[in-house]
Formats: sequence, structure tokens, C-alpha cells
Amino acid sequence: MIGAGNLATQLSFALKEKGFSIVQVYSRTKESATALAEKTDTAFTTSIKDIHRNADIYIFAVKDSAINELLLEMPQVSGLLLHTAGSVSVDVFESFSSRYGVFYPLQTFSKNRKVKFDEIPVFIEANNREDENLLLSHANKLSKEVYILSSEKRKYLHLSAVFACNFTNHMYALASDILEKEGIPRKVLLPLIDETAQKVHELEPLEAQTGPAVRYDQEVMQKHLQLITDEATKEIYQLISKDIYKLTMDNSYE
Amino acid sequence: MIGAGNLATQLSFALKEKGFSIVQVYSRTKESATALAEKTDTAFTTSIKDIHRNADIYIFAVKDSAINELLLEMPQVSGLLLHTAGSVSVDVFESFSSRYGVFYPLQTFSKNRKVKFDEIPVFIEANNREDENLLLSHANKLSKEVYILSSEKRKYLHLSAVFACNFTNHMYALASDILEKEGIPRKVLLPLIDETAQKVHELEPLEAQTGPAVRYDQEVMQKHLQLITDEATKEIYQLISKDIYKLTMDNSYE
Repeated sequence: MIGAGNLATQLSFALKEKGFSIVQVYSRTKESATALAEKTDTAFTTSIKDIHRNADIYIFAVKDSAINELLLEMPQVSGLLLHTAGSVSVDVFESFSSRYGVFYPLQTFSKNRKVKFDEIPVFIEANNREDENLLLSHANKLSKEVYILSSEKRKYLHLSAVFACNFTNHMYALASDILEKEGIPRKVLLPLIDETAQKVHELEPLEAQTGPAVRYDQEVMQKHLQLITDEATKEIYQLISKDIYKLTMDNSYE
Repeated sequence: MIGAGNLATQLSFALKEKGFSIVQVYSRTKESATALAEKTDTAFTTSIKDIHRNADIYIFAVKDSAINELLLEMPQVSGLLLHTAGSVSVDVFESFSSRYGVFYPLQTFSKNRKVKFDEIPVFIEANNREDENLLLSHANKLSKEVYILSSEKRKYLHLSAVFACNFTNHMYALASDILEKEGIPRKVLLPLIDETAQKVHELEPLEAQTGPAVRYDQEVMQKHLQLITDEATKEIYQLISKDIYKLTMDNSYE
């Protein structure tokens, strides 16, 4: 396991649980390396040159830019090289090995939040049919939902995840901020946040939309803009409101 | 019950379930009026002039601008007048009655999705202590979480709900749109959407944030911008990414 961050940690737990053995954890920093090594009862190294040479699979669960840097220092190995990044092409491994692929789980990971790995959609890719089958068989042990997807398509998947997760979380952050300034506890938003997420299990987001923007209630929107003191937040309010209304209109003409 | 939309419908169900009796449903359109009247086994009218004169409580669950319009045509009544709007002051009733208040449930309602009303935070307000107590006692039967909150504060609550619900849902819509264009089923996003919502039950949104913007990964963000064809979506991507990074920085200096 190359990396010891949020994804590396949760993936290691899932691998152990499903009976895979992790022979070694690599991380640049000793603190992270030992933390994950202890949790998974594994050896560790902080030097990529000292990496175990006979592993079956090398999983690069590191930030995008680190993949290339690590490959430059890594010894030649015959095992299958995998990365877990949404926006990095499988070809990043091309000049280093003849066996490589991608294992991309579509989820947001935290070190200390256990996730049900078998419910996470996993998108895989490999440079030859044999390794694709190997990867497929391993991935099917970890998750009930495995798809084969090209690097080209995976980029869009990652982009959509930024909207559905990172940008959504930022909406939560802005909402919390507004309440905090008024001394209202942010926990009152949780049932609303949950229902908003639950709704799109049954309805298309377009059908699920409610609020002043979708009905183009200019009076309410004007009042809201007057309440917002932060200029960037104001701009975000205007831009998204306009886009909600546009999308509704576009769709009503179809 | 004045109104027969999403909130009126779900509130009527909750009232019935808790043993309240609804004497009459009013809606401008016969279709909506009969639909809710049938579901709640109640009389209905489409003429505000013919409204029942001896109800204990009149609940205006209509769009903001309709409250004033309806009051102008409504006969004098002695019951308590309530509205359910986030951004309308309690004073909207001032010249029509000496007994008025607000019952604001913080949730997104659909006609056909049953919600657990007792888990919804409800914010109440009344123009005199006696009615405040009456309203409090009724509200406590409907929800486990009732707060007394002024019209001034309620405006901010409504604003924060727009971010946490409407804008969040729009992020889901944009994410779905990206996938749809690539022929990837939008349901692959659901575990991510759910986990993003679940995370903020335990973590502050700021701590929960992940992705390219929070680590200011310009390479990934540039790649993403190249994938986005819609100009408004591109603008939204840039504005929110910048704001995520700003908020992270602001906080790391604290």
C-alpha cells in the first residue's frame, strides 16, 4: 500500500477484512506510515527505494502529483501497478511497467470514519485483458458494484464527484456559517441535509428542486441578498440561483 | 388548512396523525383542493370568502406573496392566524387580527414523500404570550424539536436552508448532468451523496472537506475546467473552488 492517507487507510481496512494480505505500507512521513502499519498489523517503510519487491499488487493511493515522483525512484517490480486517482490516466504507468491499471472507488474518505466498502461503486481499468480480469475478480470481492471504465470517462466521473461531494459540502459550510453568526446551532440543518440527499434516491434532482430560485421568487431572493455580508457568498447565491432557474426553464421546454 | 401544496399536504398528514382535526382545506385550484381534501377526509373550498369562520387555527401554507392577497379577501375570524414561511415576518398579520404567529418547519417537502414530521426542527413565534404557549404546546405534539425564534432570526434560517438544500440539490443536478452526457448512470453518485451528508453529522463541514479545491490542486482544477462545456457551470466551478480554498485558509490562521 503506497500512501497512508484517508483512502489508503479505508482501502487497507477493506482489503484486510476481505482476506487480502498487505505486505508493506509506504508513506513519506514516518508518522503516517507507522499509524497505518499499526492499524493493519503490517511492516512499513518511508523510503520508496526499500519497497518490497515481490508484492502481487502495488496500490498508489497518493495525491495525483506524487504518482510520477514515486515512480521515478521506485525499483523495478513485476507486480501489477494500480492507482486510485480520478483524474490521472492509466498511462501514467506506461514507461515503468507492462502491467498496470486503475482502481477508483467513488467515495469521500476520512481516516476515522469507517465506510461500507462493499457499497461503494468501484471503477477499474487495466492495460491488458489478463490483468483486467484479475483486477475485476479482486474488486468484486471488495465491492458489490464494479464497473470497467476508461481513463477518458473516469475524468468526468471525478468532475461530477467534485460537484456532488466537495461543492455540496461547501454549501453545508456556507449554511453553517450563516447560522453560527446568528447563534443558531448548525445541527438544526441536519434533517434538511439528510432529506435533500434522500430525495434524489427517488427523484431526479431537477424534479426534487424547491425554494425561491426554482419559482423565481425575486422578492425572497432580494431579501436574501441583503442578509449576506460576504461578497463571495453573495456572488455564489446569485450565480447558483440564476442557474437553477435556467435549468428549470430549459427543461420545461423539452 | 390554507394551501394544498407540498408543505400543506405533509403538515396535514402530521396533524391528522397526532389527533388534530382539519375542518377545511382551501386552495385556489379545485384540483389541489380536492386532492388534499380527499387524502385527509376533509371539506374543501376554492373561495377564501367561504372559509370556515370558527376554526381554532388558520394555517397559511402558501407561497409568500399569496399571504397578503388572501388576507385582503378573507372574512374576519377570531382564531389564531399562522403562516409557515421562512422569509415573511410575523407582522404580515398585524392589521388583520390580534392573534397571529408563525409555524416554520425547517424541511424540504414533496407531495408524495412521507417525512418523519416529529424529527423536523420547528420554529415558532406568536404576537402574545398566551398564543405562544398554545402554539408551543401544539408544536410539541408534532415535533420533538421546537424552538421559539424571532422573525428577524428566521430570515437567516431560511437563507441557510437555501444553501443546505436548494443549492446542494443544484450541485446534484450539475453532477448528474455531467454523468448523463457521458452515458454513466447517475445512481453511481448516491453512496457519495449519502456519505457527504452523513459526514457532517460528526464533523464540521470545514473539517469534512476533501478534493482538489481544498488542497489547491491547480493541475486537477485546470483539467476539470477543460471538461466543462457549459459556461455557467464553469463559472460556478471556479467561484466555489476559490471560496473553498479561501475558507480553508481563513480557518488555518485562526
